[in-house]
Formats: sequence, C-alpha cells, structure tokens
Amino acid sequence: MAKDKKFVEQITSMDVDFAQWYTDVVKKAELTDYSSVKGFMVIKPYGYAIWENIQKEMDRRFKETGVENVYMPMLIPESLLTKEKEHVEGFAPEVAWVTQGGSEPLTERLCVRPTSETLFCDFYKNDIQSYRDLPKVYNQWCSVVRWEKETRPFLRTREFLWQEGHTAHATAEEAEERTVQMLNVYADFLEQVLAIPVIKGQKTEKEKFAGAKATYTVEAMMHDGKALQSGTSHNFGDGFARAYGVQFTGKDNTLQYVHQTSWGTTTRMIGALIMVHGDDSGLVLPPHVAPTQVMVIPIQQMKEGVLDAARGIVDALAAADVRVKVDETDKSPGFKFSEQEMRGIPLRIEIGPKDLAEGQCVIVRRDTREKTVVAIADVAAKVPEILENMQHEMLERARAHRDSHIYTATNYDEFKQTINEKPGFIKAMWCGDQACEDQIKEETGATSRCMPFEQEEIADTCVCCGKKAKKLVIWGRSY
Amino acid sequence: MAKDKKFVEQITSMDVDFAQWYTDVVKKAELTDYSSVKGFMVIKPYGYAIWENIQKEMDRRFKETGVENVYMPMLIPESLLTKEKEHVEGFAPEVAWVTQGGSEPLTERLCVRPTSETLFCDFYKNDIQSYRDLPKVYNQWCSVVRWEKETRPFLRTREFLWQEGHTAHATAEEAEERTVQMLNVYADFLEQVLAIPVIKGQKTEKEKFAGAKATYTVEAMMHDGKALQSGTSHNFGDGFARAYGVQFTGKDNTLQYVHQTSWGTTTRMIGALIMVHGDDSGLVLPPHVAPTQVMVIPIQQMKEGVLDAARGIVDALAAADVRVKVDETDKSPGFKFSEQEMRGIPLRIEIGPKDLAEGQCVIVRRDTREKTVVAIADVAAKVPEILENMQHEMLERARAHRDSHIYTATNYDEFKQTINEKPGFIKAMWCGDQACEDQIKEETGATSRCMPFEQEEIADTCVCCGKKAKKLVIWGRSY
Repeated sequence: MAKDKKFVEQITSMDVDFAQWYTDVVKKAELTDYSSVKGFMVIKPYGYAIWENIQKEMDRRFKETGVENVYMPMLIPESLLTKEKEHVEGFAPEVAWVTQGGSEPLTERLCVRPTSETLFCDFYKNDIQSYRDLPKVYNQWCSVVRWEKETRPFLRTREFLWQEGHTAHATAEEAEERTVQMLNVYADFLEQVLAIPVIKGQKTEKEKFAGAKATYTVEAMMHDGKALQSGTSHNFGDGFARAYGVQFTGKDNTLQYVHQTSWGTTTRMIGALIMVHGDDSGLVLPPHVAPTQVMVIPIQQMKEGVLDAARGIVDALAAADVRVKVDETDKSPGFKFSEQEMRGIPLRIEIGPKDLAEGQCVIVRRDTREKTVVAIADVAAKVPEILENMQHEMLERARAHRDSHIYTATNYDEFKQTINEKPGFIKAMWCGDQACEDQIKEETGATSRCMPFEQEEIADTCVCCGKKAKKLVIWGRSY
Repeated sequence: MAKDKKFVEQITSMDVDFAQWYTDVVKKAELTDYSSVKGFMVIKPYGYAIWENIQKEMDRRFKETGVENVYMPMLIPESLLTKEKEHVEGFAPEVAWVTQGGSEPLTERLCVRPTSETLFCDFYKNDIQSYRDLPKVYNQWCSVVRWEKETRPFLRTREFLWQEGHTAHATAEEAEERTVQMLNVYADFLEQVLAIPVIKGQKTEKEKFAGAKATYTVEAMMHDGKALQSGTSHNFGDGFARAYGVQFTGKDNTLQYVHQTSWGTTTRMIGALIMVHGDDSGLVLPPHVAPTQVMVIPIQQMKEGVLDAARGIVDALAAADVRVKVDETDKSPGFKFSEQEMRGIPLRIEIGPKDLAEGQCVIVRRDTREKTVVAIADVAAKVPEILENMQHEMLERARAHRDSHIYTATNYDEFKQTINEKPGFIKAMWCGDQACEDQIKEETGATSRCMPFEQEEIADTCVCCGKKAKKLVIWGRSY
C-alpha cells in the first residue's frame, strides 16, 4: 500500500507552478528517471513506448518520401569536425571528448557526435561519384550528446534520442524542395499524430543552424504560452560540400558540388506532448500516439461475470485494432482511475455489476471526462469513433488555445507590455537587422521564433527601431 | 557504364580465400563501408534494412514474452563501472573514456558503455522496493563501444549495434528460467528467420561473461567450419545485486537481493547470415529477413506490354504482402541478374515478350537457381509457396552442412589431427579443468564453444589429460 500511495499524491497544479507541474507529471506518469550520470536521463518503459510509436509513425512517413535508413559512427575525429568553420564554432563548445581508447591515449581526440553532418559529408565524398548516384536521401535514428549546463527531462538533456536526415542533391532547387518537404512531413506528423498545431517558418540568421544557408522550423506553443521548437530542416546549399569536397560528375560531364540538407526531430516532442495536452490530473495523450488507448477498469471485480465481461471487451477491442488493456489488480477502482488519468490513457471503460445487468458499460474520455453509456455489444464499433473524435478535438483545442495567445505589437512599448503581461506569441514587424533582434532578446527575453511562411504586413516599421520593416516575425519566450 | 562495371567484377571465390570473399561480399552487396574513424563502420541502406528486419522480428518475439524497452545513458561513470570486480576486469581494458565535456575537464571520467549491466543495477537499486515491483524485464536497442584491436565489418568493430536485455527477479529459479527462455527465443529466431541452425549450450568458466554465474550460448557454424557465437544469455545470480545493493522487501517482509539476467545479440548476426548462406555470386538471404524478397526483371523492356506486365506482377505480389521491386533501369538484363544475385534477393522473376505471348513468367531461386515457369495469373499464389520452401530448405541445407562437419575425438592426437585437417566442430570429453582448456587453445587454436545442453558420453576420459571426463564439450576455431 505504501507503493500505491505515491500515485494518488497530488501533483502541483499547473497554474501554481508550471515547471514543477511538468516535473511531477514526468515522474508520476513514469516517463523518465534521473540517472547517476549528471544531465542524462533514463527513459522508462512508458516513456519509451511513446517514443516507439513516434518512431514507427515518422519512419513510415519518411519512407513514403523515399528515405533510407543508415548508421554512422558515434564518434567523430576532431579534424573532421572542424572542417566547416561555422559548424565547428556552433558545436565545439558543447561536445564530449573521448581521449583514451582501451589502455592507450588517442593520438587524435574524438567527440561523441552532437549531430552527424560531418560524418555524412565524409561518407558522401567517397560514395557519390556521378549524377547517377544522386539523390542520396538518408536518415539515422540514434542518440547524440551535447554538454548542456542546465537540463530538464526531454526538453534539454546531455544525451537525447533523435532522427537526423542528411541528403545530397544534384541541384539547389532539389535540395530546397527536400528541405521544405521534410518540414511539411514534420508539421503533418505533429498535427495529425501528436495533435500539436505548428507554425511553419524560417529562422533568422541569428537563430539558424551552424553552417546552414537556411533553417526552417515548426514552432509549437505550450500551455504556458512559451514556444517549443519541435523540428528543424536545414538547406546547406553547397557550403558543406565545398568544405568536405563532395563532388559529382554531372550529365554535362563537369565536376560539381552537391547541394545538401539535414533535418531532425527529437525526444523533445514528448516534452511538447506533455506541455500542450496535460492537465492537473497528469498526462493526456492523443489516441494516435498513446501506447494504451483504452484501459478497461472493472468495478466490484469479485462479483460474478464482471471480469469475464471486462475481458470480453478487451478481446472485442483488440480485434478492432484498438490498443487496450484491463486493470485486474487488487487496487481500488478510484485508484485505478487516478493511475489511468496520470498516464494519460485516452479512454477508460468502467464496467460493474449494475452495468452488466443492463448489458452496458461506461466510456470516459480522459481529456473532457465526458461519459458515454454504450451497449457492450456496440463497444468495438463505438470506441474507434470516440478515439477519432478525441484526436480531432485535442488538435482543435490546442489550436484554439494557441490562436487565442498570439498577439500583435506595432511598437516597442506595446511589445514589452504584451510579453510581460500576456503569455504567448507576439507577431511584430522587423527591419531585418540583428541589432534589433539582440536588443529584443536582451530586454524582454523573447527570441525570434521564425519568419512565418504565411507573411502578413501588420505595420510598415520595425517594432524595435522604427525603420522600414522587411519581415513579419513570430516572437516568444521559449524552452 | 563505369559505375555499372564495378558490379560485374568477379568476387574472390570462397574456396580460394574465404576471408577475402567475405570482405568482397560485404562491399559489393553494399552492406557497409569503412569510415574515417578507425575500426568503426558505416552501415549502408541495404545492410541497415536487414538489421531493421532483424530488430522488428526479434522485438516482436521479445514483447510476446513480456519484455519492455527502455533507454539508459550512453556514458558510465568510472566509479559505477568498477563496483563489480570481475565485470570491471573484463571490460575496463577495452572501453573508450570521455575526459572532457564542453570546455571543462571532467572531475570523473566516463566510459562509453561497452554493455549496461552497471547502469541497469544503478537504476534498479532505486526503482525496485518491493516484491510487487518484480520482475523487471527490460531491454534496450542501442550501440556499444569496445576498443578492439583488429576489426572486420559486422564480426568485430569498435562500435556495434545490439540489443541488451536486463532482468531482475525475486527468485533464483525465475532468473534461471528467464535466462533459458531468452536463449530459446534466440535459437528460434536464428533458425526460423535467419535459417541458421544453432547448438545451445553453456559456456565454460573460462569463456563465460565477466561477472556471470552462468553463460548460455547459441553457436553457429559458418561455411568454412568456424564457429560464430550468435547470442548469449547470462544468469548473474545475486552477484551484481550484492555489488550494487539491489534489494527488495519480500512477501515475508525480509530484505532480499534480486536475481538478475542479461542477454544480447548484435549486428554480428548479419556476418553469420553472409557466412552461412553466401556463395561465389554473393549474398543469399533467407526470405524471412530479406528486405526485398522478389526482384522482377523485365527482358526487352522496350517491347510493348513487357513493363506493364512486370508492374502488374509487382502489384499482385505486393497485394499478397510480398516485399517486391521491379528493376526498370536501362542496365542489361544480365547485369540486373548479377546485381540481384550479389544482393542475395531470394527470387527473381524474368518476364519478356516471349513469356508474355504465352501468359507466363519465369521464377528463379537465388539459392539453387531452380527455375519455375508460372502462369502470370498464378504468380501471387505461387511465389509465397516458393519463398517458404526456400526458407525451409536453406535451414536444412545449413543444418546438413553443419552436421557433416561435426567430428568426434576421443584422444588428443585425434583431436589435433582433426582440427588441422577437417574444418568444423569437434565433440570431445573434458575433465572440467581449465588447464586442459588452456592447453587445447594454445596448441590447436580451438576454443570450447559450449557444453551442449544435449550431452552425450562419447568416452570416459578427458580428450586432453586422460583423467575422468565430466562434460561433453563442442570445440572449434571461431570468429
């Protein structure tokens, strides 16, 4: 019973302390645990099951666009890392260095990959000879290490799991197309599977990836109004190809540099899931990504027929391809409800002697707590419909929340007042000068999230300096 | 055409130089490539697709036995690695050490995991409190690093991909059951999916895993008669639990140590696939693991109707859940045949104008080159049947090859003569003394592969010292 107790302890309310609420949910939904290795997390079975569903669905979508998976070495020689100037400046300060292998000190130190552009370039340099070898559309699922100072589970850890796509193309146009294509794959995945609406746009020079010509991003708003960058796609032009000598013989028999892209998403998306959909009872998972979609909870399970009926419902749902479990433990129903709610299982089905007598059961939605009484015979038909409705409504609710927290500012006073008083994003015009971006960040804590693809002209002048505006920018405080 | 040429170059015959044949196949079937990081390999799309099929099928089998996947940190603090004496002595000499994170030297060095017993113990120590928390049956898919001196693709590399299961149980009996259960999962997988027959047995004290009470193994014979350890399962008893303090409160309210197991298989299995089934034309993949099971190759594809018919066959097979592709490139049919054979694609279907006129096509098996003429309308019914026959016959052929290369020796002269003259395994009795095992290894290069579960008594005395024998041992030279 001591063990039972920890589950029903209250978690901190999100309105009282959002950061503590997040930490409580991660711990009590048993997603991760701390490890003896500072800044590194253990991903527990329930957290990993969510990641497996993310991987499975993304990987399927990648392969539909012609992506092939590969595996590159985990370690990068220092001389290889340092060939592209901007890239090494961006990453060298935060890598972990291997200096000894077995009993010998290494003659050249190796870093644990923070990202693998350099390894893919090194590989492509030999693997690509002719235009016939193009395009290369490769991806890998792996972990990377970045020596962060402050860490939080899923959001910022010294090691995280991700996928990194790396492509090489014969033309600049094709590389640009692939960059945008993968951003769209990310946006569709986030919206349709994770029920997280995103704003697609381009990063400013200041915020783009080290070594990229252009970085595109999908930005999501968390429940507290802060931004979370949820996936990025980079067009490198031929910059890396020139630094690493990745050339091919074109159809016209001339030697040319390839045009490259890379794109990545990480276990951060699980952090986004928590902070977009969660509530004061814990996690709320969209049905499309939930490891368990339905938990059947028998009431007075010792009474004749109850367990049989519960198991019958499980069989019927499993046959309809619903991911379903039954909780037959000796805990109280109330405790089982709390557990199911904490873990964000989309639906629970309650069935007890009274229901049984009437040939029915009660379906309860995790997000709205809406109850539907259904004839037992109709469960397998009804549940998929409720799951789909819930998936759709979770997206629309998140979209409505986001849209109601996007403000506009046409002058700097308005900007500062809004960012301090109203959690959310601010749309404001920008002159394109990094000095203004720096000033806004320093004085307000807001960063440019992106220059959205859907541009509007809400004013003529830069919100910061008042000079002629060039771009609409979405600003926000971020994770 | 220069690109085409490299494919039709002859590979070294396996009878001339088996090691060179292996290297040629790995390269020309485009499974791996060397990288700029010494001893590390790049796994190319075709090699990785085989690994993905292995993962998918193994993971499904694991989950059927109650396994849950997790993810542990990639780095291990030195103080954590060194808590179990035998374990650290086994692994410390071959690990890579991280000594700097970002711009600061670390106060304690961290090794890149060579295996994760220590991390799981450290996690279980906090996660397990009561008998209610047991058993824990966790697994992770990841890469590990061991600083090997000599490396060969798949067989021995400084980094390799694997799965490592780590379990904790309330009783010694349950731990032993799980150890054997997972060995059986490995044996079934190797036989049914990879068509590789294995001998199940126990490792001697000398050959067991560092820190284990008992190590069980599945040993396979390669085409050249050498052994390849293809999976191991370890029972740790409560040794690690005592070293790391992993205790639980039992039903009787006493504090007890858990009993642990671990079990692993690696990308080595791809090396086994190559060396068990390959021939002088390249790779031969069993249908159950082949990324592409059927390659449709149109003959005179410019002739009216040929490509349409080829595509029709692809559609029919895909609808029957066969993994099928069509080669519509402008290479010659002969060249396409060579490519399909090099890559070990189980079946090819040839279809040209003459076949079309007669409403038929020709199915050619990769392993036997047996041809079957089939009506186009019957292809979708016939192909799965041929694939299943091929899968079955590949296993039986490998078993017959292995069984015809297992010899017995009842005295040391016979042992030495057999090991030098007849590639294969030797069954011989052993007194149980490590001195004999050491002597045999030093003088013949053969190691004890295992004490097979199926024991026989082929003599009374040890093949080496002539003293009373205790166990039948399978001996062989190994990879």
